[in-house]
Amino acid sequence: MKKILLSHGGGGEETQKLIKDLFFKYFSNEILEKMEDSAILDINSKIAFTTDSFTVSPIFFKGGNIGKLSIAGTVNDLSVMGARPLYLSVSFIIEEGFDYDDLEKIVKSMAEESKKSGVLIVTGDTKVVPKGSIDKIFINTAGIGKVIYEGLSASNLSEGDIIIVSGTIGDHGACIMAEREGMEMELDLESDCASLWDLVEYVINNDIKIKAMRDPTRGGLSAVLNEWAFSSNVNIEIEEGKIPIKNEVQGLCELVGLESYNLANEGKIVFAVDKNDAESLLEILKKHPLGKEAEIIGKVIDGTDKKVILKTTHGTKRIMEPPSGELLPRIC
Amino acid sequence: MKKILLSHGGGGEETQKLIKDLFFKYFSNEILEKMEDSAILDINSKIAFTTDSFTVSPIFFKGGNIGKLSIAGTVNDLSVMGARPLYLSVSFIIEEGFDYDDLEKIVKSMAEESKKSGVLIVTGDTKVVPKGSIDKIFINTAGIGKVIYEGLSASNLSEGDIIIVSGTIGDHGACIMAEREGMEMELDLESDCASLWDLVEYVINNDIKIKAMRDPTRGGLSAVLNEWAFSSNVNIEIEEGKIPIKNEVQGLCELVGLESYNLANEGKIVFAVDKNDAESLLEILKKHPLGKEAEIIGKVIDGTDKKVILKTTHGTKRIMEPPSGELLPRIC
Repeated sequence: MKKILLSHGGGGEETQKLIKDLFFKYFSNEILEKMEDSAILDINSKIAFTTDSFTVSPIFFKGGNIGKLSIAGTVNDLSVMGARPLYLSVSFIIEEGFDYDDLEKIVKSMAEESKKSGVLIVTGDTKVVPKGSIDKIFINTAGIGKVIYEGLSASNLSEGDIIIVSGTIGDHGACIMAEREGMEMELDLESDCASLWDLVEYVINNDIKIKAMRDPTRGGLSAVLNEWAFSSNVNIEIEEGKIPIKNEVQGLCELVGLESYNLANEGKIVFAVDKNDAESLLEILKKHPLGKEAEIIGKVIDGTDKKVILKTTHGTKRIMEPPSGELLPRIC
Repeated sequence: MKKILLSHGGGGEETQKLIKDLFFKYFSNEILEKMEDSAILDINSKIAFTTDSFTVSPIFFKGGNIGKLSIAGTVNDLSVMGARPLYLSVSFIIEEGFDYDDLEKIVKSMAEESKKSGVLIVTGDTKVVPKGSIDKIFINTAGIGKVIYEGLSASNLSEGDIIIVSGTIGDHGACIMAEREGMEMELDLESDCASLWDLVEYVINNDIKIKAMRDPTRGGLSAVLNEWAFSSNVNIEIEEGKIPIKNEVQGLCELVGLESYNLANEGKIVFAVDKNDAESLLEILKKHPLGKEAEIIGKVIDGTDKKVILKTTHGTKRIMEPPSGELLPRIC
């Protein structure tokens, strides 16, 4: 089987060949193929700029792989800032001896995922490190988007605002956990890994007014809500019974003693909107394949303690603490 | 000694603390501190966009460290495209148990290096992976620059053009090699790691017309020259005796049987200019601290074989092949 060699990352002839044979084959576009030290872009607008490194293990999982995730993740970070994803950089760090075929699978799914939001991969880098210096493959993507919806911010929330989540929570985290524990066969879990630009654009095009959007990845729903409570200096109350969650995810959480709202998602958005806009947003979301399981899960209540309060299904109330401690490493 | 823990990369409270205590301390600026999913930038100009991952080993070496290199490397990729470096993203992938003090040293030198070109770190990401999943620390930077000098391209060269290098070659590659082989004490080698924007801006401000610029990193001088010969469909002749090189670097190359023009540089630029502009460029370069050892090393000759010919000090001629095979891994 063809393997990735150190020489593929040396910057010489073999690197050129890898770029042309594999990366250009899938990522082909005029800007990338110029092969200059930087891509030259003409945007002439306010832009959004973001980056993420992906270290997920296993690299192939139900519903995606590290490549698909690396595109969707950065596309989503742009999308939730109201920015149409335009350009990506991609940087691979690969362990010597990595299967060429697996790399091709990853690159192919990156190309497919890019098409979903129309984002172009315009610049990149490939490093190959000796066996043992890295576990298989890590991918960094950085992204540039054109801001088409301004004013979104974690500090926009005020009393009465409604919190909406675009679908079931914890799917990605539960899927990775099950795969690692060898439980993926018994449990029918699948990552929700998806590019969310299409959903965001649909919401914007329907003239829905949004105060804040965030994709709840590492740290899950509780990280987003606690950040919002903190940045906006408000309290948020969430009704546990209204949080959409798959039975299998709930089951796994009970089995291993984790809270689903701490689990990573890779294809969901949390929205904060004025109470007068909540029903329209929910209606629009439910019309889109990526938002059909959307639900109103809570609201901003009075007080400035910067707390998130969870009303349990038993009617009791407790604090939804921000996630802390050793959460699942290499989840994304 | 304080260590980096998995929880520092979990996206929860400890991650927030690391970002605020360490990264904001050194990288502080208004855009970064907004802590949104993407940085929002207003450039309104043609921009350059580039990325690089840094995996150098050892992470601390004479003349720099992985952090300084990660800033200078991306600043330089923007600079050689005629773009003023404006904004950087920084993404750390850190091995669990990494020394906090070492991370602080790295972050501090990144902040210092950024100031040299005025570039701002505006967005970032931190992943911590379990022990053994990575060797110590890798850093990715992506950069955005404002194009202030247009028209540079690897395909611009034509017969008669002059090739100039801004200083001695092979310093970074030789330094890393010596450190790895435990020869750093006997040989007085130091990496040339430097941000080159100041030099590029000085050249541009002096109205020198440039056809192509490139920083010869991995693959060294021969990679750049061969790429130019290929892209411009020309032959290039280089005079070996005119290539500036430190005695210690030449000595190490002879000792280990390597060609200095294949070694990585991290603070040099190769220029291609019209023959009428060569003397003015050389004069300007020599006035700047980063260019004082600049030399004219060759020219574009007739023919379209896309070859680089080396005229040796013995008067013979041979092909300067593009680098290939297992060059030094983890050089940058």
